[in-house]
Amino acid sequence: MVEKEDEMASILQKIADHELSVDMAMNQLKDPGFVELNYAKVDTDRPHRTGYPEVIYGEGKTASQILGIIQTMVSAEMNVLVTRVSPEKAAAVLAVYPKMIYHDTAQILTWQSIDVPPLPSAIAIVTAGTSDLRVAEEAALTAEAFGNSVSRVYDVGVAGIHRLFARLDVIRQSQVVIVIAGMEGALASVVGGLVDKPVIAVPTSVGYGANFGGMSALLTMLNSCASGITVVNIDNGFGAGYSASQINHLTENTK
Amino acid sequence: MVEKEDEMASILQKIADHELSVDMAMNQLKDPGFVELNYAKVDTDRPHRTGYPEVIYGEGKTASQILGIIQTMVSAEMNVLVTRVSPEKAAAVLAVYPKMIYHDTAQILTWQSIDVPPLPSAIAIVTAGTSDLRVAEEAALTAEAFGNSVSRVYDVGVAGIHRLFARLDVIRQSQVVIVIAGMEGALASVVGGLVDKPVIAVPTSVGYGANFGGMSALLTMLNSCASGITVVNIDNGFGAGYSASQINHLTENTK
Amino acid sequence: MVEKEDEMASILQKIADHELSVDMAMNQLKDPGFVELNYAKVDTDRPHRTGYPEVIYGEGKTASQILGIIQTMVSAEMNVLVTRVSPEKAAAVLAVYPKMIYHDTAQILTWQSIDVPPLPSAIAIVTAGTSDLRVAEEAALTAEAFGNSVSRVYDVGVAGIHRLFARLDVIRQSQVVIVIAGMEGALASVVGGLVDKPVIAVPTSVGYGANFGGMSALLTMLNSCASGITVVNIDNGFGAGYSASQINHLTENTK
Amino acid sequence: MVEKEDEMASILQKIADHELSVDMAMNQLKDPGFVELNYAKVDTDRPHRTGYPEVIYGEGKTASQILGIIQTMVSAEMNVLVTRVSPEKAAAVLAVYPKMIYHDTAQILTWQSIDVPPLPSAIAIVTAGTSDLRVAEEAALTAEAFGNSVSRVYDVGVAGIHRLFARLDVIRQSQVVIVIAGMEGALASVVGGLVDKPVIAVPTSVGYGANFGGMSALLTMLNSCASGITVVNIDNGFGAGYSASQINHLTENTK
Amino acid sequence: MVEKEDEMASILQKIADHELSVDMAMNQLKDPGFVELNYAKVDTDRPHRTGYPEVIYGEGKTASQILGIIQTMVSAEMNVLVTRVSPEKAAAVLAVYPKMIYHDTAQILTWQSIDVPPLPSAIAIVTAGTSDLRVAEEAALTAEAFGNSVSRVYDVGVAGIHRLFARLDVIRQSQVVIVIAGMEGALASVVGGLVDKPVIAVPTSVGYGANFGGMSALLTMLNSCASGITVVNIDNGFGAGYSASQINHLTENTK
Amino acid sequence: MVEKEDEMASILQKIADHELSVDMAMNQLKDPGFVELNYAKVDTDRPHRTGYPEVIYGEGKTASQILGIIQTMVSAEMNVLVTRVSPEKAAAVLAVYPKMIYHDTAQILTWQSIDVPPLPSAIAIVTAGTSDLRVAEEAALTAEAFGNSVSRVYDVGVAGIHRLFARLDVIRQSQVVIVIAGMEGALASVVGGLVDKPVIAVPTSVGYGANFGGMSALLTMLNSCASGITVVNIDNGFGAGYSASQINHLTENTK
Amino acid sequence: MVEKEDEMASILQKIADHELSVDMAMNQLKDPGFVELNYAKVDTDRPHRTGYPEVIYGEGKTASQILGIIQTMVSAEMNVLVTRVSPEKAAAVLAVYPKMIYHDTAQILTWQSIDVPPLPSAIAIVTAGTSDLRVAEEAALTAEAFGNSVSRVYDVGVAGIHRLFARLDVIRQSQVVIVIAGMEGALASVVGGLVDKPVIAVPTSVGYGANFGGMSALLTMLNSCASGITVVNIDNGFGAGYSASQINHLTENTK
Amino acid sequence: MVEKEDEMASILQKIADHELSVDMAMNQLKDPGFVELNYAKVDTDRPHRTGYPEVIYGEGKTASQILGIIQTMVSAEMNVLVTRVSPEKAAAVLAVYPKMIYHDTAQILTWQSIDVPPLPSAIAIVTAGTSDLRVAEEAALTAEAFGNSVSRVYDVGVAGIHRLFARLDVIRQSQVVIVIAGMEGALASVVGGLVDKPVIAVPTSVGYGANFGGMSALLTMLNSCASGITVVNIDNGFGAGYSASQINHLTENTK
Repeated sequence: MVEKEDEMASILQKIADHELSVDMAMNQLKDPGFVELNYAKVDTDRPHRTGYPEVIYGEGKTASQILGIIQTMVSAEMNVLVTRVSPEKAAAVLAVYPKMIYHDTAQILTWQSIDVPPLPSAIAIVTAGTSDLRVAEEAALTAEAFGNSVSRVYDVGVAGIHRLFARLDVIRQSQVVIVIAGMEGALASVVGGLVDKPVIAVPTSVGYGANFGGMSALLTMLNSCASGITVVNIDNGFGAGYSASQINHLTENTK
Repeated sequence: MVEKEDEMASILQKIADHELSVDMAMNQLKDPGFVELNYAKVDTDRPHRTGYPEVIYGEGKTASQILGIIQTMVSAEMNVLVTRVSPEKAAAVLAVYPKMIYHDTAQILTWQSIDVPPLPSAIAIVTAGTSDLRVAEEAALTAEAFGNSVSRVYDVGVAGIHRLFARLDVIRQSQVVIVIAGMEGALASVVGGLVDKPVIAVPTSVGYGANFGGMSALLTMLNSCASGITVVNIDNGFGAGYSASQINHLTENTK
Repeated sequence: MVEKEDEMASILQKIADHELSVDMAMNQLKDPGFVELNYAKVDTDRPHRTGYPEVIYGEGKTASQILGIIQTMVSAEMNVLVTRVSPEKAAAVLAVYPKMIYHDTAQILTWQSIDVPPLPSAIAIVTAGTSDLRVAEEAALTAEAFGNSVSRVYDVGVAGIHRLFARLDVIRQSQVVIVIAGMEGALASVVGGLVDKPVIAVPTSVGYGANFGGMSALLTMLNSCASGITVVNIDNGFGAGYSASQINHLTENTK
Repeated sequence: MVEKEDEMASILQKIADHELSVDMAMNQLKDPGFVELNYAKVDTDRPHRTGYPEVIYGEGKTASQILGIIQTMVSAEMNVLVTRVSPEKAAAVLAVYPKMIYHDTAQILTWQSIDVPPLPSAIAIVTAGTSDLRVAEEAALTAEAFGNSVSRVYDVGVAGIHRLFARLDVIRQSQVVIVIAGMEGALASVVGGLVDKPVIAVPTSVGYGANFGGMSALLTMLNSCASGITVVNIDNGFGAGYSASQINHLTENTK
Repeated sequence: MVEKEDEMASILQKIADHELSVDMAMNQLKDPGFVELNYAKVDTDRPHRTGYPEVIYGEGKTASQILGIIQTMVSAEMNVLVTRVSPEKAAAVLAVYPKMIYHDTAQILTWQSIDVPPLPSAIAIVTAGTSDLRVAEEAALTAEAFGNSVSRVYDVGVAGIHRLFARLDVIRQSQVVIVIAGMEGALASVVGGLVDKPVIAVPTSVGYGANFGGMSALLTMLNSCASGITVVNIDNGFGAGYSASQINHLTENTK
Repeated sequence: MVEKEDEMASILQKIADHELSVDMAMNQLKDPGFVELNYAKVDTDRPHRTGYPEVIYGEGKTASQILGIIQTMVSAEMNVLVTRVSPEKAAAVLAVYPKMIYHDTAQILTWQSIDVPPLPSAIAIVTAGTSDLRVAEEAALTAEAFGNSVSRVYDVGVAGIHRLFARLDVIRQSQVVIVIAGMEGALASVVGGLVDKPVIAVPTSVGYGANFGGMSALLTMLNSCASGITVVNIDNGFGAGYSASQINHLTENTK
Repeated sequence: MVEKEDEMASILQKIADHELSVDMAMNQLKDPGFVELNYAKVDTDRPHRTGYPEVIYGEGKTASQILGIIQTMVSAEMNVLVTRVSPEKAAAVLAVYPKMIYHDTAQILTWQSIDVPPLPSAIAIVTAGTSDLRVAEEAALTAEAFGNSVSRVYDVGVAGIHRLFARLDVIRQSQVVIVIAGMEGALASVVGGLVDKPVIAVPTSVGYGANFGGMSALLTMLNSCASGITVVNIDNGFGAGYSASQINHLTENTK
Repeated sequence: MVEKEDEMASILQKIADHELSVDMAMNQLKDPGFVELNYAKVDTDRPHRTGYPEVIYGEGKTASQILGIIQTMVSAEMNVLVTRVSPEKAAAVLAVYPKMIYHDTAQILTWQSIDVPPLPSAIAIVTAGTSDLRVAEEAALTAEAFGNSVSRVYDVGVAGIHRLFARLDVIRQSQVVIVIAGMEGALASVVGGLVDKPVIAVPTSVGYGANFGGMSALLTMLNSCASGITVVNIDNGFGAGYSASQINHLTENTK
């Protein structure tokens, strides 16, 4: 990968200095930054660009495709995180890599070959109801895999808003807040109006009828009258956990 | 109108008793219960069926059509309420009926020829923001026209939820609560979780982008996780005021 | 829970009077009003706020989560109502609580530990067709659980409108009317034009093609040309029964 | 136009009989059945195929384009019907063809050069409200232009259903019924359940909020629980009048 | 049922003439026109109002509910038609009524206790593809059950439009044309431009992706540039067959 | 089939020359261009009109219907391509035609009885992810069946855009580019901005939540800010392969 | 721009050969390929990448922004094409560049400083109606600006399909066909079934009611049962003209 | 406002210590945290809760309502930011507060009475096109008002992706990235795949046809295949600027 000018100038300088032949430079410049697997091109350059290794999206991939990608990442000594893995596919993977851990509520497979020490500053994960657990745990495990502490505040939806007030201190002590809610998703606005930290809202498909598969909560969160709320896709616990981790790590970088 | 069996039996008995000729009975049975105006059939039977006179929906009617219907109702000694009247149409009506009152925030025309004494028990009208005023006043004036006291609690949206708590006593002292909100409409759920009275939620078209003309608040309110909330059409302040009045009058009937 | 000012003033006075230590007052103020269950926070304060105990929404919860919540409520001597319980989950619950009753048409579990004497004034539940039965029974059982009499008027859709007229007296004698209809949902408007009581309309997902999962009936009911109609979510029999009960109890409170 | 086999066989026979040269036959077969106007190809073959001359859809055409098409039809001695003509365009056309008649409620221009005697059997046009008049008159004038008698039954929506019953005889005496309604469009189902004649339903865009420009009434009519109802596009009075005329003329053809 | 004035006047006259007691008249007037089945009110008055007996919509009804309704209709000596019956429900019904016929392509059950002689004039049923067969046969069997001849013209979609032209004579010889198409549904417009008879278009859910369950074909048909096309719900073969039958019978009545 | 004037003139001339009787000519003109199969009309004229034989769309057809159509095409010595064939139906077909090949990733059946030599110029098929493979192979096999070379460039989505740049040469050397992507489908715009060849974009249903079954990628591709992109239906690999083949063959025709 | 490896290798070789300093090479590699205008970055590298200069999309840009971009392109000796220019903006531009030509039907501004000789092979542009002219001319002028001959075949919609057959020869003699239609857009499928060349379909927003701003025609074209059709955005005449030109030029390149 | 326990405990302790009377404590607890303006309740407690003063949303408020709220905030010595102010309303405000500044591209009014020194770490604002300027400036001015440095990178959409690569260094040096794009919105995914900082995506309503008022770009951004992207409402530049500022300030707090 060659977008960074410094790298490019350094290569050019080496050619001028005869430290590098044109052929060798071309090879170096042509280093693809990925491993070709026929059905996939595993992105080995990603930590360099975005700070984190590639995360495998398990849905729509066969167990053997997932295994192939894991093998490539393990060879490259990367930590592995696979989301949306059904129990059947998980079993097939665990048969080959028995050291991997399958988190069944979150439907996530993880393997931490390299230790990631958690940041002291926490991410709060707040849910409206019990049915939002799968998405909440997907967010929590993602955040933990990338070295964050997580405060879980579950089932504090606005039908009984005193439950939220009772946990407000925990929420306010974190650096970033993830709010997860289905049905009408009003919790995001209420939290947004009470905290001074960035809020990432995750609509879930929990509900029926006019929730239209999560559309209802999604629109609620996009139209929030409270400021400081950004939104990810319906049921996208992973995305919320990932973004929250990026934000939380900013505090580390600048210390 | 002849659906009520008692009325029918009474007519039949009178025929049997020769107190009524067949022709006269037919006329009585055929009393249409409306006045034919060519472009409209004014429903003069409505108070008998539903307890209230017809309300004129002003949109899509010309000023002269509105005038014709008003004239019919005035002749029948009914109170007149016209909703969604533009200032232009209102001016045309007031030129003919200078005693009518035009409420410009609510875009409503009223004429109370018969006095309607207000019930002691109140209807609370709660709005999320300042931009919801037109709809709120449409609801308030409708409720007042039908003999209800109204408590106005405006601009208490969830972005600053303490404003709502500061007015919770007023809300809890009313018999019915109307909650009016645009954008994400979360206020309805929050109020629903805090009171023990029926809540009627009115989504408004206030907002932009993914509010899709009020769809966002509508879906929020339909999917509310709080119980005891029913919903009317987007911007339908009149409908909420009408239903709240019906409910409030139940308490009177049963005393 | 501390929103009510009287309660707060009374606590403060007791501190001033040295009848209460600051610590004890803090505990009392900090009484959360819920029981923490890890996956749920059961709202034990709800009867105080909204007049009714929490109702358990069974969908998306595991049988063991439902059992845990039931146990908490039973310990708190609350009546239990669980909606949207599949026969499989119901069987698991009944194995532990054999005294609970499973209503299979409505897919509802109930346990009335405290007797709720029914009000004399009734709620009419009117359906358009036979396929609306599940939703209708969910509404009926909810209303009955909260102490209301219910008049069932089923299968009187507008394709044969004389069936409705034949039952109009029963409908008119009730205090609140619930109208349940799928397909085009026209029944709500027709009933709304014939009665002087509040009408709660429930669209159902019955139908196919352009009914789009109940959207068709929902839009019909929201746009009704008849006044006095409010709407709940598609298939939300519970919500209609709950709101109707709230309205019906108003008549009691004011006597 | 050559699809009809008889015509084709007759031409071939004439060639075989040397009554027609190959060139002449090719010309005859190649008779395009339309007049080329650069911006339009006026379909002069339509009466032959569908029984009626082309009707000009005025929207999206300039006044001069409309004039050009009228001129072509007038030259071909066809009756002219132009729908959706704004007053401005109508004035431009009338300046050239002062004998044409502009119906301003319906926004239609007509010119009957050939007399079309009306059928004795009538088409009933039933509307829910006063605001549906433009669409109703578009349907009525179309039907009358094609030789049908029309019975107008306006403003009989289900909010006051007795108005409909009062006019049921007129409706039942017609051969075809057109029902026109906006908002929730329930009238179509009610009429469909009461008559034994084909019902054509026209949803209108009358309403606001969740009527979504007529979508609400459209879905209602498509999902009707009553049998015997077919539907045309939102506000398509012309289409309903045209189809009703086709149906009404069937009775004539078969006598 | 009492809407018809003649009937009413006759009853009143009889009372005046002492040929009928008030009680007897009330009974006669109160004849409900339906049979109460607890879960259904079978509409026995329908032939009187709409010319055809009630048709049972099988979806969403249990086999035992269907059986109960059939029994009521058989007792009343009505012909029976049940649509959308799964093979499982059909087997349960046939076990009780072995003389009924189950048409498995159309998923329809029929029993003709009274002979309905077919009209000489035919209904053409035209489909775009092979996958539209279920809907086409639902339409065809409905039309035949109500005494119509049917011309089946299947698989003539516009991808090979010459197949349509080859069958145009058959189509043109019928009194009414039903066009059934999924995917983009263009066939309806093409047929509409070629015939002078009313066309009823049935969109089907055949297709994938952006057909959105038949929405694509539905919109096509509603927006047709050809005149004389009316539309029924997606996959509603029954509705099309029913309406076509009504239209076809008009020709009979007027002869 | 008779649309081509030359053919028609030649027939007419033969009649004039008494080389052909009128009856024979009528038969020739009436040659339907299809084989009637009761449930299908196999279009044998298609190669003549569109350059390719009919392709069988397997979904919604029974195995025996598919077999019947194959038999007809085999008899007419056409190459056979069946798309969207489930493994079960494929097995039933292979039992009768064991020489056919079933491609299980693409769910396609093929039989090349006539050899189609591939063009030297290639079609590039570019996918965003591994989950797009089924659609990609449907496109690839279609293109190969019609005599095109295919360059497969899989899993180069914009999350790791360097993978695309690494394969840009292969893409730029082809005559037409097919871009296949689900989720947000951004890859099409990026490729469109980098190549000077026509790009056909295929949205896939890969994704969840607010992808609404592929709608998300579809809208992305239709609204592309890059020029030179046209779009086919969601998951329509066949359509893309077919259109690409048509375009690629243009280069051959003009050499 | 540096993606092409040859260019890169040549630069590296020159450095190795001391023909180029590292600084100079860096400048050359860093040549941005665009001109910075503060509010815009004019893409001067586009002809190199995609074969055509940038086309200016006029909507949402001020007249002075358009003028600035034109000036940049004129300086770079590029031909200029601006689409969607209102008459007001056009006047402002013409005041500065009086040699530019404004095509008012198409709302396009052009300036051909470099002569583009037209290809002999033509693009056919086929429209369903007169109201599609603006879009058709946008496509036609785009194609002509890029050196293509255009055959205009206007107003041949399926309501009078013989008009299409009369022009089929012109259509079949072209290399690419653009089909433009609003309302139900059926014309695309019909043309697709009759020609052996690639068809680009353009849905237009012509129509009303359930056409939903062109959605109806868009869905029709995406779901076409005919093969060989690809689709562009609603009203996107430019995009169709551009893609057709790319395809048409393929034939040239390969000669 | 009393949610914070420390504050509460401190008040209670003072009462116990007789430093505070019960009445005074009640007043203090009852301090509403807002100023009542009849049509608005200005939230003066917000800086305390969320770190920033209330921002006035100008749309749907009259100039005099805006003035009233400004006056309240000025009295409370808060900085003032009003978004979505039309030039007309701005003029009315400036007539009263001539020191306020109106930014006409962004349609924002600002008044910084208290100096907010900018953070050294920057927010990058990246747009796809020139037409996205209004939204971009709304984001930029919001961020600057809250003490952030802003790097503007405009018009780098994927149709000419080299423009983005040319500015990648500027983007990578910022702490947070806002990506603003209309049409298909692909830029967000491309940027997301290239940086290791949180990306906030803003869909704009720029485009036409199937962009459905910004829905297209919104769905693109929600479904992004790149990780680390969160989304705000269509055209919500303010919201993006606000959230980015919150994130950027985290880095400050933790130093």
